[in-house]
Amino acid sequence: MTQNIYDDPAFFTAYSGLRRSLEGLDGAPEWPAMRALLPQIEGARVLDLGCGFGWFSRWAREAGAAQVTGVDVSANMLARARADTADQAIVFQQADLETYAPPSASFDLIYSSLALHYVSDLAGLISRIAAGLVAGGRLVVSVEHPIYTAPWRPGWTTNEDGGRTWPIDRYNLEGPRITDWLAPGVVKYHRMLGTWLNRLIAAGLRVDHVEDWGPTDALLDARPDLASERDRPMFLIIAASLR
Amino acid sequence: MTQNIYDDPAFFTAYSGLRRSLEGLDGAPEWPAMRALLPQIEGARVLDLGCGFGWFSRWAREAGAAQVTGVDVSANMLARARADTADQAIVFQQADLETYAPPSASFDLIYSSLALHYVSDLAGLISRIAAGLVAGGRLVVSVEHPIYTAPWRPGWTTNEDGGRTWPIDRYNLEGPRITDWLAPGVVKYHRMLGTWLNRLIAAGLRVDHVEDWGPTDALLDARPDLASERDRPMFLIIAASLR
Repeated sequence: MTQNIYDDPAFFTAYSGLRRSLEGLDGAPEWPAMRALLPQIEGARVLDLGCGFGWFSRWAREAGAAQVTGVDVSANMLARARADTADQAIVFQQADLETYAPPSASFDLIYSSLALHYVSDLAGLISRIAAGLVAGGRLVVSVEHPIYTAPWRPGWTTNEDGGRTWPIDRYNLEGPRITDWLAPGVVKYHRMLGTWLNRLIAAGLRVDHVEDWGPTDALLDARPDLASERDRPMFLIIAASLR
Repeated sequence: MTQNIYDDPAFFTAYSGLRRSLEGLDGAPEWPAMRALLPQIEGARVLDLGCGFGWFSRWAREAGAAQVTGVDVSANMLARARADTADQAIVFQQADLETYAPPSASFDLIYSSLALHYVSDLAGLISRIAAGLVAGGRLVVSVEHPIYTAPWRPGWTTNEDGGRTWPIDRYNLEGPRITDWLAPGVVKYHRMLGTWLNRLIAAGLRVDHVEDWGPTDALLDARPDLASERDRPMFLIIAASLR
């Protein structure tokens, strides 16, 4: 089973205080890049994998989705997600992505924000969710970027010019990485960029767009704290379609 | 025009002494990974972009290609390529990849080994070479990996554990990088991984395989000097097809 760090009380409290938890989609700087990759939402059947507090699930319904299924492993997060809407066309479901299988050929859009790097059996999950898409359906996913996940001891260092650098090692050694992020011992899975893409291709998906997310000039003006994201991308965004 | 560093006498002499120059394809550790992505060579019309000494062009003919066109900007390299074969079905042509356009719908395979990161107008080149493929034709290309090209001052450093790390900076700032490799002032173009792929997709190609190349266990046993390639990939290999 996936490590359910979101139901660790200390982690949950810390996570709840993050900008993206308090402000929802607008607190996530990569959201406009994700939104630009979405297919027509009006009338769509949407699956939100790792839905967390349900921000995207509610957005999709407000944008006209016919129905939304939000799936998450965390009871804490689902409790808040359910409390935040009375919309009968949104169903929140507790499930572990290591084994979760959506009903087949049922979704026009499968969306997942920063969840899949917690999953050990990526090939299995991709295969199951590809089967959940209708023909022509789209997958839009963000994960922690392989440059971000690769190092054994991630963290900024300073080079001899005094500049900020992100030291890469073990990039080609895939597998678990244990970090202290909001709580000690969070387990994520590092995969090379090719692995993320080749898994999708092997499941019959066509890769439509790949983005090493970084801030636009306008966003940097508003949020100078994001400058480091131009030195080392934190997010990898992929859009793919079932052929 | 592309910087023609291969016709700089000092660079050419140094390059000629590299293992991959002396031993050809078998001296290039990534060659088996490239070869595994090739379509059927028997009867194929092949374009070798940045053909250098013509090692791949000659291999393709020996493997049964109907005809091979090798293109390179370097007069030095083409002179040796022409001297090394009398095969009338191989044509070596001097051209600058910044402006080169192959005849349309003429090739079953376009192959390029470690040349495209020297090209400034990547979108233009990709568009022109996509038009050179027949329907169903394949592009197999290697370039310096974005992790390798990103840093302003590339080079290994040592982390606090004494381990080898590759410091990344300016990953999201695309453009020229000037390095001293065999000669001072070699100009390469850094692009994000998404940019390499999105350019292919925009030209109507389907991405079939993406590989952050690293040595296999067997190769590491034979060439322990390649261990660093597991910490930081040097080569990005992409296969794509015209839909």
